[in-house]
Amino acid sequence: MHPHPAFNIASVSNDIRTALQAKIDSKTKPLGALGQLERAALRIGLVQQTLSPALNRPAVLVFAGDHGIVAEGVSPYPQAVTYQMVLNFLAGGAAINVFARQHGMALRVVDAGVNGDFDPHPSLVGAKIGKGTRSFLSAPAMSREQCQQALEKGAALAKAEIAAGSNVLGFGEMGIGNTTSAAALMSIFCGLPPEQCVGRGTGLDDAGVQKKAAIVQQALALHGLDPSDPVGVLAAVGGFEIAMMAGAMLGAAESKALLLIDGFIASAALLTASRLAPEILDYCIFTHCSGEAGHTRLLNALGAEPLLDLGMRLGEGTGTAIAYPLVQSSVNFLNEMASFESAGVSERED
Amino acid sequence: MHPHPAFNIASVSNDIRTALQAKIDSKTKPLGALGQLERAALRIGLVQQTLSPALNRPAVLVFAGDHGIVAEGVSPYPQAVTYQMVLNFLAGGAAINVFARQHGMALRVVDAGVNGDFDPHPSLVGAKIGKGTRSFLSAPAMSREQCQQALEKGAALAKAEIAAGSNVLGFGEMGIGNTTSAAALMSIFCGLPPEQCVGRGTGLDDAGVQKKAAIVQQALALHGLDPSDPVGVLAAVGGFEIAMMAGAMLGAAESKALLLIDGFIASAALLTASRLAPEILDYCIFTHCSGEAGHTRLLNALGAEPLLDLGMRLGEGTGTAIAYPLVQSSVNFLNEMASFESAGVSERED
Repeated sequence: MHPHPAFNIASVSNDIRTALQAKIDSKTKPLGALGQLERAALRIGLVQQTLSPALNRPAVLVFAGDHGIVAEGVSPYPQAVTYQMVLNFLAGGAAINVFARQHGMALRVVDAGVNGDFDPHPSLVGAKIGKGTRSFLSAPAMSREQCQQALEKGAALAKAEIAAGSNVLGFGEMGIGNTTSAAALMSIFCGLPPEQCVGRGTGLDDAGVQKKAAIVQQALALHGLDPSDPVGVLAAVGGFEIAMMAGAMLGAAESKALLLIDGFIASAALLTASRLAPEILDYCIFTHCSGEAGHTRLLNALGAEPLLDLGMRLGEGTGTAIAYPLVQSSVNFLNEMASFESAGVSERED
Repeated sequence: MHPHPAFNIASVSNDIRTALQAKIDSKTKPLGALGQLERAALRIGLVQQTLSPALNRPAVLVFAGDHGIVAEGVSPYPQAVTYQMVLNFLAGGAAINVFARQHGMALRVVDAGVNGDFDPHPSLVGAKIGKGTRSFLSAPAMSREQCQQALEKGAALAKAEIAAGSNVLGFGEMGIGNTTSAAALMSIFCGLPPEQCVGRGTGLDDAGVQKKAAIVQQALALHGLDPSDPVGVLAAVGGFEIAMMAGAMLGAAESKALLLIDGFIASAALLTASRLAPEILDYCIFTHCSGEAGHTRLLNALGAEPLLDLGMRLGEGTGTAIAYPLVQSSVNFLNEMASFESAGVSERED
């Protein structure tokens, strides 16, 4: 056994499932006619163990970190963009600011390991593990201790939001180079060759994508990782923001919150978390399928049914924010729609 | 030439397209990373001819009507459900009420031809052409005069909403039996065999779907319709709510509003409208691909790229309401996101 932080996540009880489905089916609509909104309503009812769920104080946690692997040329953008984008988040000018504001979602920007120092700011959570990871082409990205620290800090952050009244959390990230880390995690945990996991990230051309796959292949050969040791894998090829996001997801599920999963990197963090506590998947709504090449395959591996497929590939938790109204719609129809009986509408004749 | 009401819809001017695309590309995100939201923003900017579009007083118009074809057994629900569901809309208990309320959209329930009388209600617009159509297996569903009246009333209704301050309208419907009408319209205008156009509607089994295709085939043989006479086709196999919705779409596009298109029946109404004035397609956002079998093919015929694909098949304009926040998001990112320059974020290095 490899030592790792203990996360105690309970599977959702299915005792209420039949009653939830009956309530959904009683509504004035043909059976199943609200499609995925019905499955989301069922999921949320199971997570909250109630026929009348409610979403309270939605928040998006955006974890930021830098990556040593950027030195190998895996991104068309310079590493400094991570730091600059955190400043953009704090100034309110990024896409996630716009969408979180639109839907009244609180935004927390978590410095998990950005290569730069920030002045204090009400939206900034300082949780820096280090000023960027090492390049995992030459050494593990971080130590096992750093990885455990990131997981634990993440869990504590999520629990603090839940203690403050949130029962639904979106998870996003910012980190130049982090699609390479995410692809490496996916390759190991899904047992898929790197070329089926890598994509264009922020905009690599075909040669860049090939180089990225070769770098992941080289890293996997170097570290000789054991997928049954998720913390070891995460330390070797992960990132501070990915590890802290995985910890936050685990902490949120321990506290029985609803988890809104964003795109490729958030899905890779969840995949890692699910190797520490598979029950976490009971608490997740997958908000979108991103345009990043490996994401469809990764979602399949997670048994996910994403709500949106808009070709978005921005990260920052933007998928969780733009999908939030759909999640709210699924709760609303369950609570507010009339039944055939209450509305006096005739049922099927056959 | 067949006589039909004249609708004067101007193609959108492309003069502003380059400037709009440049504004989209200046935002702090990788090029194209907001996917379809970027294309929606471009569309809305073109419709409104501005780099800073705004959505004002969104409204959903739900057109209701009954169908004589129901006597042939094309729906598992009795015809009375159309009337009952209108009462449900007026009482606020249907899915469209829940979703319109969630997003602050005004809801107008238009009695285009329901087989029953309603008491006055602030949300009800009385525009009844008749108490349901005739079965188009024995006669044209309505007269050419009725069809023209429905088109004109629809256009006037849309223009009244726009005069009251709306610049974005969603179009929905309620009418037991109306997927059969919609499939017949699609078959004629797309030149596709009925079996590629029909679907389960509110829940037919395989035998029911086959029977529905045979009924459409029989109707087409009976009426010998000419696709170059859209009003003649619409009168023969359409419905009062479909004709009035087509008219409302045309009126809205004449007034340069943004049109939000719902599912299978709304798309069939738009298809018909586009045969009267092809320029209407410049003004449309397709909100979702429904679970109704023929819808994907119909969307392809319209060159549409729907925002959502949630397996919904409820009608009522529900797709336009649940997709509305995404449309708003596309406007918001265009207006509110920082640019690389304004935020001091580095651009690509290559």
